Parts: sequence; C-alpha cells; structure tokens
Amino acid sequence: LKPLKLITLTTDFGHSSSYVGQMKGAALVVDSGLHIIDLCHEVPPQQIAAGAYLLEAGYAAFPRGTIHVAVVDPGVGTGRRAVAARAGNYFFLAPDNGLLTRVLRREALEEAHVIEAPAYRRSPVSPTFEGRDVFAPAAAGLASGLALRELGPPVGELKELPDTRARLESTGRLEVQVLFVDGFGNVTLDVTERELARLLGSGPLRLETPHEVIDEFHRTYQEGSSGAPFLLVNSAGYLEVAIYGGRAADALRLSPGIRLTLTTPA
Amino acid sequence: LKPLKLITLTTDFGHSSSYVGQMKGAALVVDSGLHIIDLCHEVPPQQIAAGAYLLEAGYAAFPRGTIHVAVVDPGVGTGRRAVAARAGNYFFLAPDNGLLTRVLRREALEEAHVIEAPAYRRSPVSPTFEGRDVFAPAAAGLASGLALRELGPPVGELKELPDTRARLESTGRLEVQVLFVDGFGNVTLDVTERELARLLGSGPLRLETPHEVIDEFHRTYQEGSSGAPFLLVNSAGYLEVAIYGGRAADALRLSPGIRLTLTTPA
Amino acid sequence: LKPLKLITLTTDFGHSSSYVGQMKGAALVVDSGLHIIDLCHEVPPQQIAAGAYLLEAGYAAFPRGTIHVAVVDPGVGTGRRAVAARAGNYFFLAPDNGLLTRVLRREALEEAHVIEAPAYRRSPVSPTFEGRDVFAPAAAGLASGLALRELGPPVGELKELPDTRARLESTGRLEVQVLFVDGFGNVTLDVTERELARLLGSGPLRLETPHEVIDEFHRTYQEGSSGAPFLLVNSAGYLEVAIYGGRAADALRLSPGIRLTLTTPA
Repeated sequence: LKPLKLITLTTDFGHSSSYVGQMKGAALVVDSGLHIIDLCHEVPPQQIAAGAYLLEAGYAAFPRGTIHVAVVDPGVGTGRRAVAARAGNYFFLAPDNGLLTRVLRREALEEAHVIEAPAYRRSPVSPTFEGRDVFAPAAAGLASGLALRELGPPVGELKELPDTRARLESTGRLEVQVLFVDGFGNVTLDVTERELARLLGSGPLRLETPHEVIDEFHRTYQEGSSGAPFLLVNSAGYLEVAIYGGRAADALRLSPGIRLTLTTPA
Repeated sequence: LKPLKLITLTTDFGHSSSYVGQMKGAALVVDSGLHIIDLCHEVPPQQIAAGAYLLEAGYAAFPRGTIHVAVVDPGVGTGRRAVAARAGNYFFLAPDNGLLTRVLRREALEEAHVIEAPAYRRSPVSPTFEGRDVFAPAAAGLASGLALRELGPPVGELKELPDTRARLESTGRLEVQVLFVDGFGNVTLDVTERELARLLGSGPLRLETPHEVIDEFHRTYQEGSSGAPFLLVNSAGYLEVAIYGGRAADALRLSPGIRLTLTTPA
Repeated sequence: LKPLKLITLTTDFGHSSSYVGQMKGAALVVDSGLHIIDLCHEVPPQQIAAGAYLLEAGYAAFPRGTIHVAVVDPGVGTGRRAVAARAGNYFFLAPDNGLLTRVLRREALEEAHVIEAPAYRRSPVSPTFEGRDVFAPAAAGLASGLALRELGPPVGELKELPDTRARLESTGRLEVQVLFVDGFGNVTLDVTERELARLLGSGPLRLETPHEVIDEFHRTYQEGSSGAPFLLVNSAGYLEVAIYGGRAADALRLSPGIRLTLTTPA
C-alpha cells in the first residue's frame, strides 16, 4: 500500500483556536505539496468514543492510501504511546487510547509502530500539543515516502475502548446505547443494520426511550414528514432516530451513553 | 466553458459530523488532484432559501469554470431530481428543490441535466447521503472532463423558490423580508441596491421594524460608530441592517422571514 | 525571502456566512494553484487583541515564505491603511489596526507597504469587504511573484495595540490579564514562560482569581486529573489555567480582559 499525499484530520480542537491550522502548518513544513482535508474537528472535548465513531463513519469515503490522523488525546504529553498503523487500504495515526477501536473492527490491522523517531518531530515537543509536534510531521513523513517502521518500534496490540455495541439480553430484548448526535439532532445508536439483522432478525422494530416509544421505520427522512420520530439506517450503516424538520436528540432528550431497548414486537 | 478542477461546497451539514469530509473524500476518489473549497456549511438546517442566498452571495467570487456544489436537501433519497447545470461562467450541482433560484436570477441557465449515470455514483447510494454518493462524484467527474450531458437526460425548467423579494405596495410603501443573519448579527434584507433604486428611487430611506425606526444610512460600518442601528449596502449588493460593535439581529429581534416596511420619507 | 504559494487566513468572519469562501475565491481568481489554509475564523467579532494572539500562536508553525492574511477589521472601508509586511520568515497582510502587534514583538519588521495598487484589487472594492476585494487578491499577487513594493508606498511604523502584558508592581506582585479562552475552556494569560522567569524568577506560583487561588502547576493536562484548577505552559509558550476534563473559563468565570494577580509565595 502506497501512501497518498492526502491527509485527513479528526480532532476535538474545535474552530475557536488556531490549533487545527497549526497542525496543517507543521505538516506542510515537511512537505508543502500535501493535501490536507478536515474530517471533523468538533469531536466533543476528550470524548474518545465519539472520535472513534466519527473516524469509522468517515475514513472509507477516501481514496486508497489516504493517511488519517486522529487526535482526541486527554493523555497528551504523558507516557501513552503515539502510534502509526496500516489497516485495510489506509494509514492511521493516533494516540494509543482506543481512538482506532471502531476502525479496527472493520479493517484488519496489518502493521503498527510507535511514533518516536526524532527526525519526524518538531523540536522541542510541546507536552500539550503533540498533534502539531508529533502526529502532523509523522503523517507528512509517511506521505513523503517514509516507511511505517522508520517511525519507531512495532506495536503488538493497540488499546481498545470498552465495547458498547448492542447486546442481546436473555429476555430477547436488545440493549442499545446512544452513540452520537449529529448537527441535525439525529441520534445514532450503537448498532449497525447488519448486527441488527443478526441479533433480532428482520421484521418491525420498536425502540423504547424514556419518553416515547418509536415504531416507525423509514428509508428516507422525507418519508417521516408526518412529524413523528422514526428509525432509519444512516449513511454509515448505523440505526438512527430522527424527526423530519426537527431535532430528535432534543425532542426525545437523548445523548451519548443513554441506554435504550429495542424489540421486535411481532 | 471548461470546468476547472476547483469545486466549492455549500451545505447545511454543520461541522459537528464528518459529512463534509466524506463528500470531499468521495470526490477525491474520482480525482485526487481536485481543489475543494468550503463556501458555507452552516446553512440553517434544511433552509433552502438561506442556502440559495449564501450561494448567490458567494459563487461569483470564484474563477470562471468553478464547479459549485450545493446540498440543502430535505428530500434526499426520494424522487426529487439531482441536477447539474451550466449558467454564466460556472457549473452548479444541487437537488432540484429551488436551491439555485437566486443564482439563476443572475446567470442565464445554459444547460441542465439530471444526475443519474451509474458510473458517477458511489454504489450503493445511501438514501440519506446523496451529497457523498451522488453530488460529489458527479462534480469530480465534471472536473475531470466529463460533459454535462453524460450525467443524464436534459432538464427543462428547474424548480423555483417562492419569490420573497421586496414588493411595492399601492401605497408606495415597500414590503421587504429579512433574508439572512450573518455571524456578526448583521441582517440582510431581501432587496438589492439596484432594486431599491428602481422601486423607491434615490433619496433617504426609513425602515420600520417592530421595535424601532431606522433612518441612518452609511457606506461603512465605522460610520455608524455612534451606536444606533443603520442601513448599508452589504458586500453582495443587498440592503443590510447593522449596529457597529453590536448584533443588530439580536438588538432588533429580526430573523429570516420577518416582514418590514421601507419608505422614502421625503 | 521568496513567498510560497501558501496563504493562511485568520478572521472574525465565523462559519455561518460565505465570507471566508469568497476570500478564497478572490485569491484563486488571481492564481488557481494557490494553497489556502484556515488558521482561525472564530476570532471573537472585532476583537483585534484576540486576533493578534491567535496569529502569534499560529504563524510560526508554517513553512518559511508562507503568506499570512489576517482580517479583523472594524474600520473596513474607511481611511485606515491596508498593509503588507515582511517580518522574519513570513509575509503578513492585515489592516493597520494593531493586528500584527504580537507577531512583530517576535519577528523584526523588514519591510511594509500600503496595499493600494489597483491591479491587485477587485473592482469595485466593496466598502464592507476588503478581505475579499483587497487582501485576498494582494496576497495572491505576492504568492505569484509580485514584490511587496509593487503593492504601494512604504509604511514606516505600524499601529500597535495597547500593551496588556503582565506588569510587575512595586509590591512584587505580577498583574496579569486574561488574554484568550480556547475551545476546551482553557484560559490563556498574557504572560509567557520566559517573561515569567524574568519577572518572578523560578519557584512556585500562586494565581489569585476572584473565586479561587490556584497554586498547582503541571507540565501536562493529565497530571491535573485530580480535578482542581492548575497552571501550565501552553503550546504557544503562554501561561494557562486549565481544569482536566472541565472548562476552567466557565468554572472560574474568567474571560478576556479580567485582571489577576500572580505571586511566588516562597
């Protein structure tokens, strides 16, 4: 797999500072011909699980060989490892804190290395901003032809986040967590269409939320234009709760981590 | 007109998800040498009229041959058409829901086609994300030399939004709607300097709002530094209400759709 | 110093309009091969001092020859000068309103010119949007080989902001202002690590805020994981108040301009 000169960035830096811009600058210092694309910078602060989902939802839209850099990093400057990995058709750079958990459920990890070669760091490294001083230059190095193994020693296993995917209870009910809320207020649940079919079979669905029971299922948003909350499969393959022209997260008071129950009433 | 490898994006996706990034990825899969620029991603959710204004305000700042992609698309996944058009010196791709209404008042529509050729779609197409699966690859195809007619059959008329432009009443008063509020709280009214001259002639203006009458007119913001609300012509040629160092929309409680009255007191 | 075809933008335009996109379009009209990077667009509206800090924190992460354009410009359209300068390894374009004050404390000003050559402006120039009509084309001109002196006559001194840096009082107490709050709620104080050492020497620090006294100092965020507010040096070399996993600005009610006192209790 040959890396492209194409880097994406996923962070929790937001847009009110110049942190994202500084990461791009530090990469362009290594290679001014790089193409750097923002995947998302509004991961909720330090929410590694949300970052893991946003990265999973987005990485595969990019060309083979793209280098994805993700920085949601409450442990910046401490002993936690910075890693660079190859998985499927992509490269990934991230702190070893579980941020790659969801991507690595979809893509086999081929190779991973600690990022520690001094040649691919800014000097000195700020203990509060390794995105700029460690990850960006390392990604730019890869894009410019550096081999993964030149970054540092190989890593065996990467840290994983706790598994929050839907779980079938002995009663036949499926416990499912709220995973993410997007800019439209649409609520992503931590179960994919495929897992749902495996766990509950096909047939109608019934989602119990603290405030409402939802049993409409649509293929598009507009089919829900009557205004009632409904379920659909989102563009990343996950089950989603939506309200046409409204914000389901607000109306139903759903936020990440809340547990709900799915059943097949048939 | 030869398309540039330059694409702009205007959407209501916001920045809290990876949707915009995914659109860019899907375009770069087709041609990794594309230059993709964000025009605006904070069109208020599903507000086609606001998107139409933001596109009108921005498209002409770009080089001849730029491909403008706009996605504010409450009907995504339904039978509404996706179209690609050439108008004036630019290309435009959008759902056929009125989003191009304002651009097409300024630029003659030369040619429009439905986007349906399977070769220029991701497969399968998500019924909730045609920005990524239909519009982005089609735009990238155009940028790479595809002809508009290769995307699908020609379209005659495009859908238009209801006309909300200022209307002269028999009493000689001009009814004008609030069209948009920008990040400074400046309030754009749906009347251009040119329409104003045609409808009311030159001479002083008087804007009646529910809470205040505004009769100062300035050329620059700083001329209004006394602090009172005033009128000026904004950078897109529209009449605007502003408060120097303040947010006129908040102070005067003005939001899109509110109707106001303009007169020439002389 | 040879300019790169690399431009950064720092503005207070926010993301809800198409203003930033229009600036990019206007630059690309001059040279479609430019690489334009966002440094920050959420400078608080018309807060020149915040813009000056964000520019200072970010400019040096970029390659030698980068052209930094900054527009926080309450005086747009008036007699205030638009300037283009060379300082250290970079070029800077900005209104002459103090926005370059902090950069020019770090980098010697080599050369500055008024931007007024008609060939490098859009015509007509909107009196409300010189970012698009004056600064962007001038920056693109520089990137394409124009000499600074071709933009207009030389400028002697640039306007400076009032000095808000920490000041040692006769009592030995250091008065320090809140300078900026980032997206994590971290609070930047207007004193660098280097100034601190010069003014107070080494040794423990004690920050008095209206609501709390802070005397923990850490090197990384995670070292503060007990939850109490603490001091650290941020990635731009400034003293910062932070709360691990929380928002110090909110918890301590600190916002730009508030004055605090630093002492060395030893």
